[in-house]
Amino acid sequence: MATITVRNGVNVDQLVATIGAIQADPAVGAFTFKATSTWEGGARSRGEIRDFVHAGSTADRGTTFQLVGDEPPVLLGSNAGPNAVELLLQALAFCYGVGYAYNAAARGIEITELRYEIEGDIDLRTFVGLQGPRAGFTAIRARSWVKSPNATPAQLEELCQYVQDTSPVRDCLANPVPVTTDLIVLD
Amino acid sequence: MATITVRNGVNVDQLVATIGAIQADPAVGAFTFKATSTWEGGARSRGEIRDFVHAGSTADRGTTFQLVGDEPPVLLGSNAGPNAVELLLQALAFCYGVGYAYNAAARGIEITELRYEIEGDIDLRTFVGLQGPRAGFTAIRARSWVKSPNATPAQLEELCQYVQDTSPVRDCLANPVPVTTDLIVLD
Repeated sequence: MATITVRNGVNVDQLVATIGAIQADPAVGAFTFKATSTWEGGARSRGEIRDFVHAGSTADRGTTFQLVGDEPPVLLGSNAGPNAVELLLQALAFCYGVGYAYNAAARGIEITELRYEIEGDIDLRTFVGLQGPRAGFTAIRARSWVKSPNATPAQLEELCQYVQDTSPVRDCLANPVPVTTDLIVLD
Repeated sequence: MATITVRNGVNVDQLVATIGAIQADPAVGAFTFKATSTWEGGARSRGEIRDFVHAGSTADRGTTFQLVGDEPPVLLGSNAGPNAVELLLQALAFCYGVGYAYNAAARGIEITELRYEIEGDIDLRTFVGLQGPRAGFTAIRARSWVKSPNATPAQLEELCQYVQDTSPVRDCLANPVPVTTDLIVLD
């Protein structure tokens, strides 16, 4: 009788099988992810995330995740949701979390606690049309806390470095991504 | 009697005053934004966004925005929320939306419709520990649709370019951001 190995809430057998499938056919590792948004006035937009393309075929999640983006009053918004750069920091936190949990599971490391605090410094002069430094974050700092009953601090530190080196969101921040933007003017 | 000018849901008088305040004292344009997350098992984490630092002082929103990050089943998750790279695309969509609406308001351009679809290609080989291209998106494509009763297509196109050039999230993607990551091992 087969026993399913679950560690850190991750099905390790499925993880190993997934890695094997991608190794056998790199197309299995190819994804196109998507997000849409509809502006609702002022700083506020409604975002939706649903389907994605995997190995050339559309995968429908069967559910739509709705998000609201807005600004706080000091930035002329109505405080209905986080702003775009806060969401960017949240994306990094989530990316680190899943990367750490999955890779720990693959290495036999049990995690009982894992938290992230991310902060980023930004100077909005360029955004508002004044002379200033770059438009985006000048620095992002992530702090994390981890607890494991079966790994040494050195193993946990090494894993933290590995996760940084293989994190999709960190890579998008630390290295340039080609971004194209098209506009269609409606009648 | 003073009349408040509101265009695109943006208080233009407040916008002009805010830009003037930042011009008079660049510290007014300095923000540190934050996001935290707590891992809940597997791919799932709970994120929270609340306070930020503005001009050296903590600003409390008075409300906490909660987000859930997860993966779809094909990536060993339980589909409880969008994944990290989808959230990154959502952040770009929201950033473009607020940038377009605010700058249109400042220029006297009325917007009646504004939508974004963002997609990004990613190869997960590096994430799962195989030889592959970069960990993050190899390309991000944004498409937008805008409708205005009082601007020419040329004006709307020029504004689209301006928003790209001054978008904080686009800048963080298109140009490298220094990211530091620290780990504290709990007993």
